[in-house]
Amino acid sequence: MLSHIIGKQPAYRASSRLIRLASTSGQARTTSVEDVGSSAGSTGPTSFKTVKVIDTQYNDKPTVVILGSGWGAISFLKHIDTKQYNVSIISPRNYFLFTPLLPSTPVGTVDEKSIIEPVVNFALRKKGNVSYYEAEATSINPDRNTVTVKSLSTVQQLTKDEKFLGISQQDAAEIKYNYLISAVGAEPNTFGIPGVEKYGNFLKEIPHSLQIRERFASNLEKANLLPKGDPERKRLLTLVVVGGGPTGVETAGELQDYVHQDLKKFLPSLAEDIQIHLVEALPIVLNMFEKKLSSYAQSVLRKTSIKIHLKTAVGKVEEKHLIAKTKNDDGSVTEEIIPYGTLIWATGNKARPIVTDLFKKIPEQNSCTRALAVNQFLQVKGSNNIFAVGDNAFAGLPPTAQVAHQEAEYLAKNFDKMAQLPDFHAKLTNETSKPDLLFEKNGFKPFNYVHYGALAYLGAEKAIANITYGKRSFYTGGGLITFYIWRILYLTMILSARSRFKVIADWMKLAFFKRDFFKGL
Amino acid sequence: MLSHIIGKQPAYRASSRLIRLASTSGQARTTSVEDVGSSAGSTGPTSFKTVKVIDTQYNDKPTVVILGSGWGAISFLKHIDTKQYNVSIISPRNYFLFTPLLPSTPVGTVDEKSIIEPVVNFALRKKGNVSYYEAEATSINPDRNTVTVKSLSTVQQLTKDEKFLGISQQDAAEIKYNYLISAVGAEPNTFGIPGVEKYGNFLKEIPHSLQIRERFASNLEKANLLPKGDPERKRLLTLVVVGGGPTGVETAGELQDYVHQDLKKFLPSLAEDIQIHLVEALPIVLNMFEKKLSSYAQSVLRKTSIKIHLKTAVGKVEEKHLIAKTKNDDGSVTEEIIPYGTLIWATGNKARPIVTDLFKKIPEQNSCTRALAVNQFLQVKGSNNIFAVGDNAFAGLPPTAQVAHQEAEYLAKNFDKMAQLPDFHAKLTNETSKPDLLFEKNGFKPFNYVHYGALAYLGAEKAIANITYGKRSFYTGGGLITFYIWRILYLTMILSARSRFKVIADWMKLAFFKRDFFKGL
Repeated sequence: MLSHIIGKQPAYRASSRLIRLASTSGQARTTSVEDVGSSAGSTGPTSFKTVKVIDTQYNDKPTVVILGSGWGAISFLKHIDTKQYNVSIISPRNYFLFTPLLPSTPVGTVDEKSIIEPVVNFALRKKGNVSYYEAEATSINPDRNTVTVKSLSTVQQLTKDEKFLGISQQDAAEIKYNYLISAVGAEPNTFGIPGVEKYGNFLKEIPHSLQIRERFASNLEKANLLPKGDPERKRLLTLVVVGGGPTGVETAGELQDYVHQDLKKFLPSLAEDIQIHLVEALPIVLNMFEKKLSSYAQSVLRKTSIKIHLKTAVGKVEEKHLIAKTKNDDGSVTEEIIPYGTLIWATGNKARPIVTDLFKKIPEQNSCTRALAVNQFLQVKGSNNIFAVGDNAFAGLPPTAQVAHQEAEYLAKNFDKMAQLPDFHAKLTNETSKPDLLFEKNGFKPFNYVHYGALAYLGAEKAIANITYGKRSFYTGGGLITFYIWRILYLTMILSARSRFKVIADWMKLAFFKRDFFKGL
Repeated sequence: MLSHIIGKQPAYRASSRLIRLASTSGQARTTSVEDVGSSAGSTGPTSFKTVKVIDTQYNDKPTVVILGSGWGAISFLKHIDTKQYNVSIISPRNYFLFTPLLPSTPVGTVDEKSIIEPVVNFALRKKGNVSYYEAEATSINPDRNTVTVKSLSTVQQLTKDEKFLGISQQDAAEIKYNYLISAVGAEPNTFGIPGVEKYGNFLKEIPHSLQIRERFASNLEKANLLPKGDPERKRLLTLVVVGGGPTGVETAGELQDYVHQDLKKFLPSLAEDIQIHLVEALPIVLNMFEKKLSSYAQSVLRKTSIKIHLKTAVGKVEEKHLIAKTKNDDGSVTEEIIPYGTLIWATGNKARPIVTDLFKKIPEQNSCTRALAVNQFLQVKGSNNIFAVGDNAFAGLPPTAQVAHQEAEYLAKNFDKMAQLPDFHAKLTNETSKPDLLFEKNGFKPFNYVHYGALAYLGAEKAIANITYGKRSFYTGGGLITFYIWRILYLTMILSARSRFKVIADWMKLAFFKRDFFKGL
């Protein structure tokens, strides 16, 4: 409860002392909040400031802090045995987002609320002590086993022994952990292309979806007051989607669906002037699928009048146009100026600042740039109590929901086993040089990814799917039937019953009515 | 097409000339947009500015302009025979709002999108020429039969002969009418009480619902970081609803439902500290119901721990507290300071500025303050081509959806009859002194309101209902069964199938899951 909060000792040892103290006093350990000097940011004495440290120690079980509320974080939460650990989740986003259906939301095929589920609803199903901190974590401090949060929106302690933290919304704070699960994901990568951040829209979070709808709707309104043939009208009605991966393709397909199935009914002259461009740097879209399916996808997209630009990179983005550079077969490059009204940027990922900050703090991570290097037990190399899953971990696998989900489930099972092995926590804490050997010696199996395939919706009620189990392929197809398979599989993948119910209701509604495309709602 | 646009002649005569010209040329009449001097605002030559006049004359049928997109406007649109009239709807809100369910939306019992239906979806079902102008009308100009709009978001012309208007979003414009249906409703009345507008939330439109949720959610988050017993925590968890009519009572009941049914599950210590106050100036809430039902309502509200303040007026509203003045039986007044976190103001109506502006322009309306005086045919007194329905018309009836709906339906039927009578339009245009006599002579029946009763939800799955046909009462009751009757009757009242589908889905969801109470969504 005292100076133990900052220490060079690994986390669990420090906590053990705490627990011993607690046991002797015979009382439940209360929350400790103390003012301590923080060197977060560590750019010398000028940045030195006082932050409070939160150490919610309910009992003698280790505290696992989960960073994030995406696929990795929530799958881990769902599977960890919270009777063996006190669990705290830290995330500024207080809901899980079912990302595979995000491309369906800007045009209202599926409602934004249908694909999110509050973190607290997952936490409520867990036994033991689970807390959710609605806060953005700004740095991980492996030297003192804490996570710094910039400010706290709120805390939800789903436990019988709620503790008063004494932290206000303005306070920065440090939250203690014995184990940390880093599952913060990644952020969109603009590859340093000027103008993307300023003029483009990403599609990675719910607010992005609302922004795209707002912008598209307002462009439709403006264009509708201009005469046919006006170049400004043409610009406003041009949508450019950059990135030919599943997100980009599905977004282009959904936009086209809205235009062809709904807008056409009440603004036909506007609908016929809309042009959607899909820009991809590789020679084919959806390159994670086998060639046959990718080619089929391209033919479907072209049939629905989406203009595909292959081997094309975006050079620069201005407010009302962008420059597309297409590599020709002879090696020359053709530049095209595309005036646009809405630009959706759906390309690769890059590491979040909290992750790049950690690269610097752990010598074994110093050379990393995209994600944390992890060993076969998903331990962050160079640490014995930090683990990473999902897009912020590099395990040689693609940054997909499927990978994050499997990693998290695997890791949660390992944590169960860790709790059952006598003294494993203490051993791991003491094992600073080769923690992976300790896992091996105790019979833990390395993480093994099983690929269940890939799915993508193309618009016009057509999808492609490649369903596998590891290297065995069970189904490969494209078209209307695959679209229904796509729907059924997505439903099974949704993590909550409420969300599943709502998505089904949205799809049923769509069979009879138009999409809910409301500006500002 | 030329100078006819401004004229002292009544509308239809001017248009007749237009039509004659059109007929002689043998061509479809095109849209006319001209720059003319406008005296809107009429405070002398300094306010004189140039505005464009839009006169969408598709054929020789009269143009009916409907102002608004609420109960009166949409019910009129649904029932008017658009084969007999060109119809334009002007409203800044591009959707109809099913107001009876608005109290269910702040806490997410029903989603905001479920109770709205785009104007264009109603317009699409009509034959003939129907246009929707997304614009805020700022003044009615009976002298030249136009409506001034401040700026135009967009125009949707649901007709084969779309016309290019040549108006940009920044332009003010005047839109010509032969007949005008004023159905702009009313705005919330603060009765001049200081601070209400600045610190309170109304509940009359969708954005109000989002604001209330945002505020309540953010207060919950803040309160959750404060210790039990802290006066600031108590303040943040206090909600005050002012107005004991159906909106106020239903809002208080819905808030309490959220607290008791949902919040209690994941933040029990917060839920138990929430206090909802209901403030009513009269000695009883829901005074439109018979005494027995009102008393029952009060007992239900009190049982769910809503604190009712009767014979209480709000004196002043400050940022964090308000002053409530309660009249005692001995005539004395007790003042109470109520610190609050969220204040919802659900009291009476007052006229919108466009209506008060019209009071000044028509001598017969000069003494009006709350709504336009109409005759038994819902004609605005002192005009022969302006009609009014709903809350902006005073026909001696309460400002309810039911009244607006019946008035609009009645008026639409009259318009059908007007179109069938030979030369009636011309006769009405010429009849400047006693237009009501013309209606009488031609066998039009005066508007007759049939009261179908009243319904109110009280929270805790209890409702009260009084179902009547005029003066005959069919059902009077309160409780759970009445709650189901309330639900069924509301479903039948919803004006669109899509909205009905979505409300059913929301209610079904509620049977299994918690409310969708998401901050900022």
